[in-house]
Amino acid sequence: MSSLFDGGISVSIFGESHGKGIGVVLDNLPAGEEIDLDEIAVFMARRAAKKDGTSTLRLEKDIPDILSGYYQGKTTGTPLAAVIFNSEQHSQDYNNISHIARPAHADYTGFLRYSGANDPRGGGHFSGRITAPLVFAGAVCAQILKHRGITTGAHIRFLHGLKDEAFDPVNVTAEQLEAVKSRSFPTITDEAESAMRAEILAARDKLDSVGGVIECAAVGMPAGVGSPMLDGLENVISRLVFAVPAVKGIEFGTGFGCADVFGSENNDEFAVRDGRIVTLTNAHGGILGGISSGMPIIFRVAFKPTPSISQPQKSVDFKDMTEQELIIKGRHDPCVVPRAVPCVESALNIALVSALSYEGKL
Amino acid sequence: MSSLFDGGISVSIFGESHGKGIGVVLDNLPAGEEIDLDEIAVFMARRAAKKDGTSTLRLEKDIPDILSGYYQGKTTGTPLAAVIFNSEQHSQDYNNISHIARPAHADYTGFLRYSGANDPRGGGHFSGRITAPLVFAGAVCAQILKHRGITTGAHIRFLHGLKDEAFDPVNVTAEQLEAVKSRSFPTITDEAESAMRAEILAARDKLDSVGGVIECAAVGMPAGVGSPMLDGLENVISRLVFAVPAVKGIEFGTGFGCADVFGSENNDEFAVRDGRIVTLTNAHGGILGGISSGMPIIFRVAFKPTPSISQPQKSVDFKDMTEQELIIKGRHDPCVVPRAVPCVESALNIALVSALSYEGKL
Amino acid sequence: MSSLFDGGISVSIFGESHGKGIGVVLDNLPAGEEIDLDEIAVFMARRAAKKDGTSTLRLEKDIPDILSGYYQGKTTGTPLAAVIFNSEQHSQDYNNISHIARPAHADYTGFLRYSGANDPRGGGHFSGRITAPLVFAGAVCAQILKHRGITTGAHIRFLHGLKDEAFDPVNVTAEQLEAVKSRSFPTITDEAESAMRAEILAARDKLDSVGGVIECAAVGMPAGVGSPMLDGLENVISRLVFAVPAVKGIEFGTGFGCADVFGSENNDEFAVRDGRIVTLTNAHGGILGGISSGMPIIFRVAFKPTPSISQPQKSVDFKDMTEQELIIKGRHDPCVVPRAVPCVESALNIALVSALSYEGKL
Amino acid sequence: MSSLFDGGISVSIFGESHGKGIGVVLDNLPAGEEIDLDEIAVFMARRAAKKDGTSTLRLEKDIPDILSGYYQGKTTGTPLAAVIFNSEQHSQDYNNISHIARPAHADYTGFLRYSGANDPRGGGHFSGRITAPLVFAGAVCAQILKHRGITTGAHIRFLHGLKDEAFDPVNVTAEQLEAVKSRSFPTITDEAESAMRAEILAARDKLDSVGGVIECAAVGMPAGVGSPMLDGLENVISRLVFAVPAVKGIEFGTGFGCADVFGSENNDEFAVRDGRIVTLTNAHGGILGGISSGMPIIFRVAFKPTPSISQPQKSVDFKDMTEQELIIKGRHDPCVVPRAVPCVESALNIALVSALSYEGKL
Repeated sequence: MSSLFDGGISVSIFGESHGKGIGVVLDNLPAGEEIDLDEIAVFMARRAAKKDGTSTLRLEKDIPDILSGYYQGKTTGTPLAAVIFNSEQHSQDYNNISHIARPAHADYTGFLRYSGANDPRGGGHFSGRITAPLVFAGAVCAQILKHRGITTGAHIRFLHGLKDEAFDPVNVTAEQLEAVKSRSFPTITDEAESAMRAEILAARDKLDSVGGVIECAAVGMPAGVGSPMLDGLENVISRLVFAVPAVKGIEFGTGFGCADVFGSENNDEFAVRDGRIVTLTNAHGGILGGISSGMPIIFRVAFKPTPSISQPQKSVDFKDMTEQELIIKGRHDPCVVPRAVPCVESALNIALVSALSYEGKL
Repeated sequence: MSSLFDGGISVSIFGESHGKGIGVVLDNLPAGEEIDLDEIAVFMARRAAKKDGTSTLRLEKDIPDILSGYYQGKTTGTPLAAVIFNSEQHSQDYNNISHIARPAHADYTGFLRYSGANDPRGGGHFSGRITAPLVFAGAVCAQILKHRGITTGAHIRFLHGLKDEAFDPVNVTAEQLEAVKSRSFPTITDEAESAMRAEILAARDKLDSVGGVIECAAVGMPAGVGSPMLDGLENVISRLVFAVPAVKGIEFGTGFGCADVFGSENNDEFAVRDGRIVTLTNAHGGILGGISSGMPIIFRVAFKPTPSISQPQKSVDFKDMTEQELIIKGRHDPCVVPRAVPCVESALNIALVSALSYEGKL
Repeated sequence: MSSLFDGGISVSIFGESHGKGIGVVLDNLPAGEEIDLDEIAVFMARRAAKKDGTSTLRLEKDIPDILSGYYQGKTTGTPLAAVIFNSEQHSQDYNNISHIARPAHADYTGFLRYSGANDPRGGGHFSGRITAPLVFAGAVCAQILKHRGITTGAHIRFLHGLKDEAFDPVNVTAEQLEAVKSRSFPTITDEAESAMRAEILAARDKLDSVGGVIECAAVGMPAGVGSPMLDGLENVISRLVFAVPAVKGIEFGTGFGCADVFGSENNDEFAVRDGRIVTLTNAHGGILGGISSGMPIIFRVAFKPTPSISQPQKSVDFKDMTEQELIIKGRHDPCVVPRAVPCVESALNIALVSALSYEGKL
Repeated sequence: MSSLFDGGISVSIFGESHGKGIGVVLDNLPAGEEIDLDEIAVFMARRAAKKDGTSTLRLEKDIPDILSGYYQGKTTGTPLAAVIFNSEQHSQDYNNISHIARPAHADYTGFLRYSGANDPRGGGHFSGRITAPLVFAGAVCAQILKHRGITTGAHIRFLHGLKDEAFDPVNVTAEQLEAVKSRSFPTITDEAESAMRAEILAARDKLDSVGGVIECAAVGMPAGVGSPMLDGLENVISRLVFAVPAVKGIEFGTGFGCADVFGSENNDEFAVRDGRIVTLTNAHGGILGGISSGMPIIFRVAFKPTPSISQPQKSVDFKDMTEQELIIKGRHDPCVVPRAVPCVESALNIALVSALSYEGKL
């Protein structure tokens, strides 16, 4: 079997945490799309570290330098390359752990995968820092979607036992999705923000970390986009979402809740409203048979607690095969979930642009 | 960007429920692998309908005809094509609903996607019947994995409020995985089987349906297989799993449970046992940074209740845009989960062979 | 790097000369295209063996059975699978040469590539017979192109020192391209036909074979299709053309003649004719920077003489590494070039549909 | 159909002639390959402009900056990104021709392809300058091949009626291939060099340009690499070679000469020499059925004369659709063929590493 082209958007993300630079090449973007660089900066700032104690104090000035594919404020249609040069590199912080596997990190598996030749400094290519070019790509795609009336957004739905209000799966609006983006902490309610901030700081004080669940939605997506089998929207969104480090699960619509209900409860009945076919409920999360139904696309993504904790942990030096106690130094996020919100949106944005592109609908 | 080849295993699944035939072409399989056709028949029989009331009474004689790529009992390395000819086609059962969207089915979205040109009979290309070639592919890959000491298996973990015992994420064995396959109902315990069978029959009697969660595992997978970002094991397994109709979620290791624990609880400490690096717990589900850790791979998949229920439902005729009451006739599974167990295993088998192939490790 | 979909038309050709069947799965075809099966039969008949002595006397009834992706006379948009079952298999003809490499055939290289597991009967997957599904795919694509006013055609330009008239690279018409298709021997002139027929029969009488050059053209192709670098029309047409066995070269426009002229002779000046931008000459063969210019696409393909000749040849038994004299029995084409004409057209048809599809222009 | 990974080496080349930078991301390279940067500089210098009058006087300091995928002198196995920043940009030279199509250039076709949004300065993404990252990729691959005893090389075989000696298709050695690389002009003989240099200077003096044919070879390639149909070595080499601007043809082994010989002349007989299977002649150019035979791989590539000539030419302003006389200013190569020699080698190097990688043979 041979496909004659690479379909949809091609995404080539490169870089190591402590190398010269990280970046992305996006190919197959539509030509002539206006891209506002200030909007990109605002989008990317949501991923940047905060000084409020909820994230690492490491400063990242992740201003991407667009090298190609962008001319007079628009995409050219040729490959768009963007690079973020690494400036501050504290490799010495990591020197003492170079061959002791940090639990729940990819130190050991990465060493095996690359026969010991990979750059281990700061997690190398496995670092959460590599999500910066992903978010850049997502910010570009957000604008391409916006030109077509499609808006995406996300918030923290759960965090260590705490809940935020959910998006209304039938009636969620673009305004509601945008509203979360303007908050300094990505929840819908102030109550959830206060409680979750306190929980993250408490975890930090215990030298520990917490995970959470992000809920993500898209509104304005036309019905009829996506394909059955391996090229459905769920397949492609999942593939992209699992590119974000620390993701361990994804569910669409009712998701795992499906296991506890009857078909008569889970089936979304169709109706005509304002001359448009809709469903009265949205257990299907806006996707049927891999194809958009025109209802809001809704899914949730599970993030594990930050693996880097400052408590002593048992581990192994994978070069000399000895058991060792490990104490991780350096600065780390006690919870990656707030900064992961634009990462999940970005995965969705890239997936939707890609599916539209693949079907000649951009 | 251009990749010069199609990497890993290429899977080309074709067919409509009521067309001439359905099938699959597998490309890039290793040459010279012995494939036992009787084992394939046994594997595929697990997907076939049962006469015990838990599934449809439609008889499917899904014996695949291998047309190419197989010679003297072995794969040739050239494309392996297998076809299942459709014999029994009761298209008349579906005639009265051809333009009324069945809730939770892809009738409406498929109509839009294919501009009304797709074959609607029996769900067409969206039919669950199309999982037969997927399971054939999975059965072939199971044998390729077995030649390398890798065993996969699955069972029903939850079904409408009922639980089966879980696989032990650290110590699950190939024998335990094989044991489920020999049971007429895919649970670990007899108690779960009885309770779940009763629940399915009760749903059927109410003209309703139920969903569930399948837990799937692989043992014997060598550490170091998979890649970060978009080509990790989680990415590829997910993409394949969402090809199975009715799947609405997937989680690896602790999965969504991550949101409720501390990092110190979720991190799996490393140790040396019998000269091998292991983790003492397996919250990571055998995958770190997209790469196998050598621990059992464990994930769970959520299935929605069968959309086809015999109760009256509100819907819309999407050709004339009128609201209609719909009563679905014909025979339908009150629960697809038992028959979906080999489908989930197949998705995993194809993903693992593909990842091994892609990295030149077959 | 990761492309998220397989772009353009995906082509999955399978089969061995003496296996159960050969066929093709075409994915990503547009939905709702009317496909006339009689036209396909006529197209494929041009590839079939002739009883006039210019080709093998083996009868091939290559009537494809469409299994999926085709409903009520139109493509459904889902994968279109077509199978040709192998009926007459004279495996005994090949028994005596199974491990002696036939010169200029792939017996030895195929044996190495597939570790000795490939099906050697009748050339297996390397047989010229595998062009039948390629030509089926080309015949389907021809109709998709025709719906958009694009016509392709080809003829034998050279054959063992003999020439046919060339297509006029600026003014060639759809009518001229169609005219060749209705001839029993694919030349433009009667003179070329008589001379070439005589040459082929003479080669046969000497137990020898001859090669030739096919010239292929497309008219009606809109300007602006194709991409620079690896996804240009020349790249994709070449990749497909080299899938036809016995092809050893391809050149576009002036091709190798470029080496002998000045830029001032080879540059095609632009002009406006009837409100349309044209070039006054067509040394560029209708493609500039990988992109169609709106002028006729013109290229030529070199075919080697049929490797199977009945004269004794020196060779090697690649299993026991002994030098052997080889006499090839069985019936063989003294020249594959006449039957290869629709193969080259098919490669072009698939390439053009694929490029149009990839860019959302179908 | 869906391939689950991007196979072989993925190549993502980006950049515009007068943008911020050009570069390449190479994915799927083997980990732990020693790459000598000085050797890369030497390789790339062969593509650089010469001060001897045979090429443009524009100075290009094309020293690539490796941003990722390279650590402690070795590939890491993660994506290798390299950027060349554009320093000298004389956009004003091109201002007067921005909408008048330069004959034989992609100005008009590129404008249509990208809806007028592409960067036209200096040819933009269509500029010959974009071959610099291709040659960087080729230089990296050359070292990966060298580690496995495979050497490639090329020379100018024809140039405007003048010939260089040919490589001996059976006995060409790695030493002979290396010898050409150390010459300031890429021919085998001094006589060809003098004659061709004079011819190029004469063309320049006439404000004209010339094309030529490059012959390229690989020795040491193991037999059994490549695949039939669309993934053969000829298919992949061709696809890559046509990425080099100005290429209009490619032929392997006897190539177009096939049309004039009998099968008995063109078939290469097999023999055993020093316990190895060889062919006594090499009309097949080292590839049979898309698969390497173990004999030298030999092919020739046709280049058109440089389109940019300083003579007045007739053309069209494609914005206002008026016919115009065009005089191209600026500095241009009177012949791109000498600088294209490492480009053709690079295409081959990438193709061979990719095919080896795809089949798990690196």
